[in-house]
Amino acid sequence: MHFSINRQNFIKSLNAVSRAISSRTTIPILTNIKIEVSDTQLTLTGSNADISIQTRILDSDTTAELIIKETGGITLPATFFSNIIKRLPADTFELKLEGLRAAITSGASSFTINGQDIQNYPQLPEVEDAESLSVSAAQLTDIISQTIISASTQESRPILTGVHFQLTGDSVKSVTTDSHRLSQRIVTLTGADAQVNADVIVPAKSFKELGAMLEGQDRVVIKLTANQAVFDLGNTTFYSRLLEGNYPETDRLIPTESTTELMINAMTLLGAIDRAALLSHESRNNVVQLTMKDNTAVLSGMSQEIGQVKEALDAKKVEGDDLEISFNPDYVRDALRVFHDKEVELQFTSNLRPFTITPAGETDNKQLQLITPVRTF
Amino acid sequence: MHFSINRQNFIKSLNAVSRAISSRTTIPILTNIKIEVSDTQLTLTGSNADISIQTRILDSDTTAELIIKETGGITLPATFFSNIIKRLPADTFELKLEGLRAAITSGASSFTINGQDIQNYPQLPEVEDAESLSVSAAQLTDIISQTIISASTQESRPILTGVHFQLTGDSVKSVTTDSHRLSQRIVTLTGADAQVNADVIVPAKSFKELGAMLEGQDRVVIKLTANQAVFDLGNTTFYSRLLEGNYPETDRLIPTESTTELMINAMTLLGAIDRAALLSHESRNNVVQLTMKDNTAVLSGMSQEIGQVKEALDAKKVEGDDLEISFNPDYVRDALRVFHDKEVELQFTSNLRPFTITPAGETDNKQLQLITPVRTF
Repeated sequence: MHFSINRQNFIKSLNAVSRAISSRTTIPILTNIKIEVSDTQLTLTGSNADISIQTRILDSDTTAELIIKETGGITLPATFFSNIIKRLPADTFELKLEGLRAAITSGASSFTINGQDIQNYPQLPEVEDAESLSVSAAQLTDIISQTIISASTQESRPILTGVHFQLTGDSVKSVTTDSHRLSQRIVTLTGADAQVNADVIVPAKSFKELGAMLEGQDRVVIKLTANQAVFDLGNTTFYSRLLEGNYPETDRLIPTESTTELMINAMTLLGAIDRAALLSHESRNNVVQLTMKDNTAVLSGMSQEIGQVKEALDAKKVEGDDLEISFNPDYVRDALRVFHDKEVELQFTSNLRPFTITPAGETDNKQLQLITPVRTF
Repeated sequence: MHFSINRQNFIKSLNAVSRAISSRTTIPILTNIKIEVSDTQLTLTGSNADISIQTRILDSDTTAELIIKETGGITLPATFFSNIIKRLPADTFELKLEGLRAAITSGASSFTINGQDIQNYPQLPEVEDAESLSVSAAQLTDIISQTIISASTQESRPILTGVHFQLTGDSVKSVTTDSHRLSQRIVTLTGADAQVNADVIVPAKSFKELGAMLEGQDRVVIKLTANQAVFDLGNTTFYSRLLEGNYPETDRLIPTESTTELMINAMTLLGAIDRAALLSHESRNNVVQLTMKDNTAVLSGMSQEIGQVKEALDAKKVEGDDLEISFNPDYVRDALRVFHDKEVELQFTSNLRPFTITPAGETDNKQLQLITPVRTF
């Protein structure tokens, strides 16, 4: 293998692939990055076994200034290789293999790094025959950001660390729950080129990394197999393993009626919760109280040691039965951030039953956050 | 105590004082901030026993919007108080004492926080009678930034964690050494209003915090007592305890002649050392080699496991005897950063003796970095 390339252009690809590489892997060769050169392109691959990312630089892309002198491949220590490339002195660099050693030269600087044979690097899954569907990157970003917040981060019930992702014709339903809260987003796909029915569980960690790569993308081609989801972003392909098992039935958890309603701007409520959380975070049980009475709503928090806070909420509407309810402010904060600066409706039935947060005026539960209160008496 | 004040203006003062406050203090009340209100001003004080910072907000300062309704004082948990003030909803806030509880209101939000009596807060040292000297803040910044790098961070020889700060008439000599390297900066003070002779050891940590507060300042009044240095920055006063003991004699450590010289741009050499350090950091002894031969200089680094790097330096001049010398790249990086984008001269006598870095063409050692090489054979 022997090539030269524009350094800044190469660094962009290197950064994309590096998202999949972890130094805390149990498979030593996965701390390496795989570099391959064919007659027409350079391919970089990174993987942590759960997620793999592969990106291609074509010799037809003139900004990359890729000149291929000899085909071949190697794997090199990823962090180290990346640090070297970022600190090289010239605008381009050259990489030439001498056995399993890579000689990297740029300006007056020349590095020699020990690599490992690409034969030892795991193969990426084959997905050629999978059903595929093109979706809008903006819609996929929306689905991801509104649901990954309620996925569990604990491995005690692995299935709950995933996002339940259901495709029915041109509609996607995405649900997560960690058993304390639930997020649901249903979207009718725009411009979908195929009708696909599928029911998979994508690790929330994979969706989080994928979400960060979607910025600036137009459309994404999704391919689903029995145990892999593949997302095609032009010259970059994102692979995620799927979680095995049955996701719990969640529809029955969503209340169908309410007896108390609060309508408020999401950011206004978020600010008040941020302040109340300053005190609740100092107390043992980390809860804040919301009291709705006589068409006013008051949020309060306290810590025995430090003090207390009370705030009358600037609500658009407080209706229904009087209610005093306690909840984990961190869960409600995560849920509210999803709505940005929109008006939201909080619907309650009792201080023991889950309450929901939805966009004001929408009753179809297509965009829903559900939170279980904390019993404090 | 009862006052109201502009929140953003108060936050600036709070941030200044917070520099002195640490949550890891052995004196519990020092995790608090002291707030006092007299007829004409509000005073904030923070301290970690070594450093104390006091700042005043005058009621004559209209941007502060300070309205004093009742004099008094309290100490409140610093981090917590600071977080509350930063998250309050309105442009101003009001603070009113009820015994040892502070009621803070802003917009619809009201906090009550438990405080402690100011009687339990340590007194600041008295420095009224001390000799004082006004110096340029820019010159003080220069002295601090060029010398704190070589102060020791280890408590095994406490005296070496200080900066040896000597005033002789209108000249300041500042020296640090951790026994592996040495920094020296000698400055003739501009616009000094007095002639002061003093010889003190200021903790490098104090100088580091002070340095960060000097930006935007014009002049600083220094007052020195037997065990305190006080720096007056207008409405803010910075107190540092002094280190006790005799600083080692350092003049004799500075070589008076050289047999090999290298002249190079500081940033050019820094870039090459950054690259060589990528490899040296992966090896056990963290050294890089500089080889000067036939009027060329080559920098190299290696790690048995990962590989090696070699780079011909783009030097302005390489003169004198051939020499191969090894050093800790981190020490040389710290030293080079001080010179920004200037030409520097490195002067060597042998690969066992300390070498110096000075601005090219200057022979007075007023701005000097000295580094002891590492023996590798």
